[in-house]
Amino acid sequence: MQLAFVLYPGMTALDAIGPYEVLRAMPDAELRFVAGMPGPVVTDSRVLALNATHTYADTPAPDLVLVPGGSTGTQAAMADQELLDWLRAVHPATTWTTSVCSGALILAAAGLLQGLPATTHWIAQSALGHFGAISQPDKRIVQAGKIATAAGVSAGIDLALWLVGQIHGPQEAERIQLEIEYDPQPPYDTGHPSKATDSMLEQVRAKLMAAAAAGT
Amino acid sequence: MQLAFVLYPGMTALDAIGPYEVLRAMPDAELRFVAGMPGPVVTDSRVLALNATHTYADTPAPDLVLVPGGSTGTQAAMADQELLDWLRAVHPATTWTTSVCSGALILAAAGLLQGLPATTHWIAQSALGHFGAISQPDKRIVQAGKIATAAGVSAGIDLALWLVGQIHGPQEAERIQLEIEYDPQPPYDTGHPSKATDSMLEQVRAKLMAAAAAGT
Repeated sequence: MQLAFVLYPGMTALDAIGPYEVLRAMPDAELRFVAGMPGPVVTDSRVLALNATHTYADTPAPDLVLVPGGSTGTQAAMADQELLDWLRAVHPATTWTTSVCSGALILAAAGLLQGLPATTHWIAQSALGHFGAISQPDKRIVQAGKIATAAGVSAGIDLALWLVGQIHGPQEAERIQLEIEYDPQPPYDTGHPSKATDSMLEQVRAKLMAAAAAGT
Repeated sequence: MQLAFVLYPGMTALDAIGPYEVLRAMPDAELRFVAGMPGPVVTDSRVLALNATHTYADTPAPDLVLVPGGSTGTQAAMADQELLDWLRAVHPATTWTTSVCSGALILAAAGLLQGLPATTHWIAQSALGHFGAISQPDKRIVQAGKIATAAGVSAGIDLALWLVGQIHGPQEAERIQLEIEYDPQPPYDTGHPSKATDSMLEQVRAKLMAAAAAGT
């Protein structure tokens, strides 16, 4: 099974690396990191770079596509015609087309979420509605046929385990969960807007809006 | 605050990228990815490469060091004298010296865990004892003074949020948890050996032992 993780400048690394660490443990997984050209792609920290192994053109028939979000890079990616054309070209033959965080906005910009339920980072839920999807703000994972979208950043790990269960059955997913010791014990409990105070929401919203503006 | 994430061939990407995504959101964080030389470092998937930004020699005084584990690369890293010498040299002046997964074995090989309580991936707990640490198999995070060790792979996210709480207080940690939407909802519940069947433990153990052997 060929897995294509999309990389683009200003993406959020954990959006891709969380699911990668789960999905790569599947039997017979062939991994690719795809971008406009091979080589380092600088993420939204402006320090960490992940290396693309293949171009879009070299990857015409992936079985699974995963599109990450990005705190600074999403808007540019939503206007990257090469990426959008590639998503539209490969989607009809994928087994799964997936996104994490604001990666859903990129799938939406490619026209793939028109009229479909989908989720994204809490800050991007209303934008997702503007691009034609039916936003599901309280859902961590949303399936619409062969499209599966996840909520913000860390939700990609939950998405990937769910995907392994769909592809290889629950036992394989359980083995991989044990392999990566995914027994989460967050020392705090503010991971969803419903658990945060209004002032905390405003502070994080302001920070993320400033990051997005800096990326445009 | 200068944060140094150690990279080495055969490391597990999520061990470093989980904590990175949390710690980079701290105010005034200066990030570095350090290795023997700058440039791409191939991880244990043999496909994904992360880019080192600095050498050990260029990084004589990090405030926080994080050493990831690796399914194929840990044993070679435990014998990498340049890495071990650097860890011994910088540790006295760090604010925090930390590890995720089998990264604890590398701290132990550098002599930094002698007689101290520490945790690691469940498969490496007994090895950790052989290298002089006091293994804490049921702990996801263990603090021993300024050393903090985490259990396997995904535990680095919990460790990093705990560290932010120690460094900047609970409110900053809570903001970052909301920012990365860390509201885990694993679709299965086998993330700790105590939750897995014996046959599942044996299957995962055999797979991880084979990966480690392939790396030597």
